[in-house]
Amino acid sequence: MSLTTMGQQAKAASTVLSQLDTQTKNQALMTMASALEEHTDEILTANAKDMTHAKQNQVRQVMLDRLLLTADRIQTMAEGLRQVQTLPDPIGEVTQGWTTPVGLQIKQVRVPLGVVGMIFEARPNVTVDAAALTLKSGNAVILRGGKEAIATNITLADVLRQALVSMALPADAIQLVHDTSHETADELMQLTDYIDVLIPRGSAKFIDLVVQKATVPVIETGAGNCHVYVAADADFKMALNIIVNAKTQRPSVCNAMEKLVVDRQIAAEFLPQVQAALQPYSVTLKGDATAKAILPDIEVAAEADWGTEYNDYIMAIKVVDDIEGAIAHINRYNTKHSEAIITNNYADSQKFTKAIDAAVVYVNASTRFTDGFEFGFGAEIGISTQKLHARGPMGLTALTSTKYIAEGNGQIRA
Amino acid sequence: MSLTTMGQQAKAASTVLSQLDTQTKNQALMTMASALEEHTDEILTANAKDMTHAKQNQVRQVMLDRLLLTADRIQTMAEGLRQVQTLPDPIGEVTQGWTTPVGLQIKQVRVPLGVVGMIFEARPNVTVDAAALTLKSGNAVILRGGKEAIATNITLADVLRQALVSMALPADAIQLVHDTSHETADELMQLTDYIDVLIPRGSAKFIDLVVQKATVPVIETGAGNCHVYVAADADFKMALNIIVNAKTQRPSVCNAMEKLVVDRQIAAEFLPQVQAALQPYSVTLKGDATAKAILPDIEVAAEADWGTEYNDYIMAIKVVDDIEGAIAHINRYNTKHSEAIITNNYADSQKFTKAIDAAVVYVNASTRFTDGFEFGFGAEIGISTQKLHARGPMGLTALTSTKYIAEGNGQIRA
Repeated sequence: MSLTTMGQQAKAASTVLSQLDTQTKNQALMTMASALEEHTDEILTANAKDMTHAKQNQVRQVMLDRLLLTADRIQTMAEGLRQVQTLPDPIGEVTQGWTTPVGLQIKQVRVPLGVVGMIFEARPNVTVDAAALTLKSGNAVILRGGKEAIATNITLADVLRQALVSMALPADAIQLVHDTSHETADELMQLTDYIDVLIPRGSAKFIDLVVQKATVPVIETGAGNCHVYVAADADFKMALNIIVNAKTQRPSVCNAMEKLVVDRQIAAEFLPQVQAALQPYSVTLKGDATAKAILPDIEVAAEADWGTEYNDYIMAIKVVDDIEGAIAHINRYNTKHSEAIITNNYADSQKFTKAIDAAVVYVNASTRFTDGFEFGFGAEIGISTQKLHARGPMGLTALTSTKYIAEGNGQIRA
Repeated sequence: MSLTTMGQQAKAASTVLSQLDTQTKNQALMTMASALEEHTDEILTANAKDMTHAKQNQVRQVMLDRLLLTADRIQTMAEGLRQVQTLPDPIGEVTQGWTTPVGLQIKQVRVPLGVVGMIFEARPNVTVDAAALTLKSGNAVILRGGKEAIATNITLADVLRQALVSMALPADAIQLVHDTSHETADELMQLTDYIDVLIPRGSAKFIDLVVQKATVPVIETGAGNCHVYVAADADFKMALNIIVNAKTQRPSVCNAMEKLVVDRQIAAEFLPQVQAALQPYSVTLKGDATAKAILPDIEVAAEADWGTEYNDYIMAIKVVDDIEGAIAHINRYNTKHSEAIITNNYADSQKFTKAIDAAVVYVNASTRFTDGFEFGFGAEIGISTQKLHARGPMGLTALTSTKYIAEGNGQIRA
């Protein structure tokens, strides 16, 4: 099926979806959850096929882990659908309203975006998550997952579509691109007539590629070269706790810490404590010349290190003269994701939060909290690192737009 | 000067601007207003040069009118700056805030976008408007105006920049691209490292081109193929009033009416009244077969007419069977700008406002109200016809983003 046809179908479905009441959407989510459970065997069979291919193609172990489904994981997906059902429906919210001098009653109402395109890599749970969140927010979705998970994704999409049909809802609310060639991804990125927003999920390199190629509006997600700045007035114990958490709790994710920035005044005393605290986690340390002078056994960081998101047990250390130096370094190299200052100085905490250009700026807390669930949104579409439309963890409202409704009684413009 | 250099300078200036208090920004706007008045002669001299060139190049009269400055028009620009000074500053607004279960105090704060790129055509007042609105919202701006107004724009930008310098503010808050070749426009559209958002102002064709070429996020503005749907239960007098206003008050603008959609039940009675009402304004009428049967002297509309924004004294008439037909026709051909229903039927008014996909949907009012000033925003950057970030008339807040500030006392993620 051509992407244009899929786009037309998605558009038609989105018109129906945009007008569904919350109750109907919630019933659909519950039906989808039960359908996943009922078709567990079918989904596992398809997943086994993907796993066999992946192993034949010598896919890395970490990728295999992401690809693998079990009865428990399918159960978790179903529970995810039921959880989305409990979230408040953003559609129909009146975000503001007023009456103009000529008596026009204007209200701004939250509406669905229309058709959402998602391009993602191996994890099949994204298929179910994305379907749930777009449905709850009244959008149609076109999913284009990675080739490794194609058999699993086809089965998942079919099961979810059948669930919609059983409720007399349009199956095309959820469509999966079966052809996983690069060409279909490229075509999807250009489908401006039908897709209202494209959300790519994957590596920083992949997202950059999408931004370059897409003519459909893109919400950039993900890349996180996150810094923790330990100021001269920091509580060392708190700082060490946060560094260990931010660096080692889950180093592969985008809100993990990648860089330590330390005030020169405390570097000689503090850095050996950092090294000792991270030693049990086998974190490879790199540093600038000052850091290297204090910790002689660490590597010297290259210029390229400062802009790199390692996503691994690696951390680079930059020593700065003062908070201005810290701000300048971070704003130069960060990816606008999550940045933290550890300090007991009030003025510095104010200066840092005001001057740092990032989606989330922390004072005395771990960068790991940048997450839709930790923020209390009950869901996460991704973490936006751009400034337009949505910034930071995105919940359901990131999948909405607004429209103005202006009610009059014959007003004309003078 | 290279655009990369300009981008770097804009970025540096934006860091300063983002931290200015409202009082300082307001003083800058007042200083800029006075500077325009003081340099009136210089600006008029530059403008005379542009006018001479434009006449030599046989630029159309309507274009010449837009290009021409007079002492009065410069005075109006200065007053515009003073008016922006009176608007509330959106920066620093706390849009929401809460405390998470682990005690993180999160607030979402309104911040500038950073660097705004504006590409526009002949009107030099856009230079001053854009500079005022971006400054008030804490953004740096890179302006790229049309070649016809280049001498005027250079002088205006210089005067405004000198005003900033006199206040010890960064001149690079306002930069103008002097090279008006297509290449610089193309390069500006790709300057993702430095520009946070691009706002093109101009014809629908020009904006489409920008959307195709730009890798910088774009806010689409402008194109308006606006419909007025007169339902069976409409008050004819009100409907005629609104049609005359929406079609003829200012046909060249994007919120002017382009298409009349009429319910079949009333077409035979109502359409001759429409023709009579528009007759004094010499509006060329086109119509589908049914309309043509009722008004034999009108042209037959071609398929291409339904999607065309005439921006002229031309109107096409479509006769539909019912409200569903009206909704289907409008959603198929509209540019998502402004659409109106004229009716006294409550259920139809609800159905129309819910189902129509547009930035502003009217009941019993003229489409001409889609305007930042009419909406009470006190300013207008443009009218967004896209669904991401901003939709409909854009005031100062459309030039802002948000960031989260999360204050803790040592929280780490479990």
